[in-house]
Amino acid sequence: MNHDAFIVKPGSKISLAKQYDPAYKGIYQQKTDAEGKLQADIQRLVHYQDILYAQNTYALLIIFQAMDAAGKDSTIKHVMSGVNPQGCQVFSFKAPSAEELDHDYLWRSAKALPERGRIGIFNRSYYEEVLVVRVHPGILKKQQLPHLPEGNQIWQQRFEEINNFEKYLVNNGVVILKFFLNVSKSEQKKRFLARIETPEKNWKFSANDARERAFWDDYMNAYEDVFSNTSTEWAPWYIIPADRKWFTRLAVADIICTKLQELNLKYPTVSEEHRQQLLAAKQMLETEN
Amino acid sequence: MNHDAFIVKPGSKISLAKQYDPAYKGIYQQKTDAEGKLQADIQRLVHYQDILYAQNTYALLIIFQAMDAAGKDSTIKHVMSGVNPQGCQVFSFKAPSAEELDHDYLWRSAKALPERGRIGIFNRSYYEEVLVVRVHPGILKKQQLPHLPEGNQIWQQRFEEINNFEKYLVNNGVVILKFFLNVSKSEQKKRFLARIETPEKNWKFSANDARERAFWDDYMNAYEDVFSNTSTEWAPWYIIPADRKWFTRLAVADIICTKLQELNLKYPTVSEEHRQQLLAAKQMLETEN
Repeated sequence: MNHDAFIVKPGSKISLAKQYDPAYKGIYQQKTDAEGKLQADIQRLVHYQDILYAQNTYALLIIFQAMDAAGKDSTIKHVMSGVNPQGCQVFSFKAPSAEELDHDYLWRSAKALPERGRIGIFNRSYYEEVLVVRVHPGILKKQQLPHLPEGNQIWQQRFEEINNFEKYLVNNGVVILKFFLNVSKSEQKKRFLARIETPEKNWKFSANDARERAFWDDYMNAYEDVFSNTSTEWAPWYIIPADRKWFTRLAVADIICTKLQELNLKYPTVSEEHRQQLLAAKQMLETEN
Repeated sequence: MNHDAFIVKPGSKISLAKQYDPAYKGIYQQKTDAEGKLQADIQRLVHYQDILYAQNTYALLIIFQAMDAAGKDSTIKHVMSGVNPQGCQVFSFKAPSAEELDHDYLWRSAKALPERGRIGIFNRSYYEEVLVVRVHPGILKKQQLPHLPEGNQIWQQRFEEINNFEKYLVNNGVVILKFFLNVSKSEQKKRFLARIETPEKNWKFSANDARERAFWDDYMNAYEDVFSNTSTEWAPWYIIPADRKWFTRLAVADIICTKLQELNLKYPTVSEEHRQQLLAAKQMLETEN
């Protein structure tokens, strides 16, 4: 799959409405066309994850951001189920706790980063600090910052801080993929109504979800600014069409596999010293009483 | 599957050698006989986990203890792959760090407990504090305890502390399953030799693994004492035959499913207040401009 349609070119200004179609489905007509490739990619993912874990050199951090009901949970479930949970961890970030607010805004994310050898998934992330916080500036006032730059400077400052944080992570072996699941406003409405009308889905819906829709345009503007400023060579953003769940899963799985393939992962080789120890252990085992 | 052959009756003294056959395989002759049931149980597990997560009342803590090469990693991989990683987390406990040693011995485990709605797996656990620490008492001396009871009193004290800790967890919604994967000494030897002879498995083997075999009987005695003292009504031990990996997986999956079934999990029902909010949100969505 060609990723040019999804990736945000570093330094470019983008328009979600003009450039990214939430209903895009590439060469695939329907879900059944994509099923074989998705299953094959999931198997590749399981295979790469096994080597990632054994090699213990890289960690893979996958960030999901999106409007409500864009499919974050279901993408994680469908793409990552099958991966050995010993090598995969998911953190869902909620509104910060009092303890978390008493720290810098990256603190709770840094604590949740995946260890070497693991895949870590952030369901929402520190990007909320330049999204929901920007759309509702009252939140920023509660963050006890020593001084608040005028106007939009705070967001520029945070973009720079986030870029530096991610560069540091990449330098130290944390490979980063950032996915925005791009759902349309009309598709979100359909999914909200389904959550209201299906009793088993009621728990997934709060009245607040509907209220946030009123800020849709503000969110789109904030997202566009995020993509233009934080899609970097070392940690690019991918804007994934999200009006068809099956295509979202297909694209996400393909991008993850491509990235893992590029890492050229290898099972660790044994040092001469370790090899000698293995031979000694072998002899010890074979000559046991 | 009848679990009487695996569970350690609370308060009973047991003999691993006399009562528990590592090669036991129940009514199943070979791997292929068990494949259908294992896959069905994994599907049940995926289903229960979805409700566990939605209900957000219980957490399930699964503890694996065993001698090296008994199959902890592969059991986790084969039984739990398929579960949504958003609702499942695995912690592998290594030798404690300096920071961890500066805390009480349950501290690092308490930090790693699963949240409500999740399955947490401990690959090794605080039981190492009454196993490896008992077999190598030099470790205990480094733990800076304020006073060290005479003789075996320290282990009796720890059994009591662990039982109380687990009772507290169960009272507060953490359901606990404890599995000992019971591999025979001869099967361990075969698996060690396979790890030495298969290059891709070399990284899994350290010379120290072979040296620990010399303490086999000490470990068996320590394990027997653990089971006799910490298999409780609220957190029983299961001794799982582990000479056949396929049977280990089958028994573990069956016991987890049975426990989740007993919890009688239900998708959350909506309060009258929430129902009114849903209806209001529905109207808001339907009358949008």
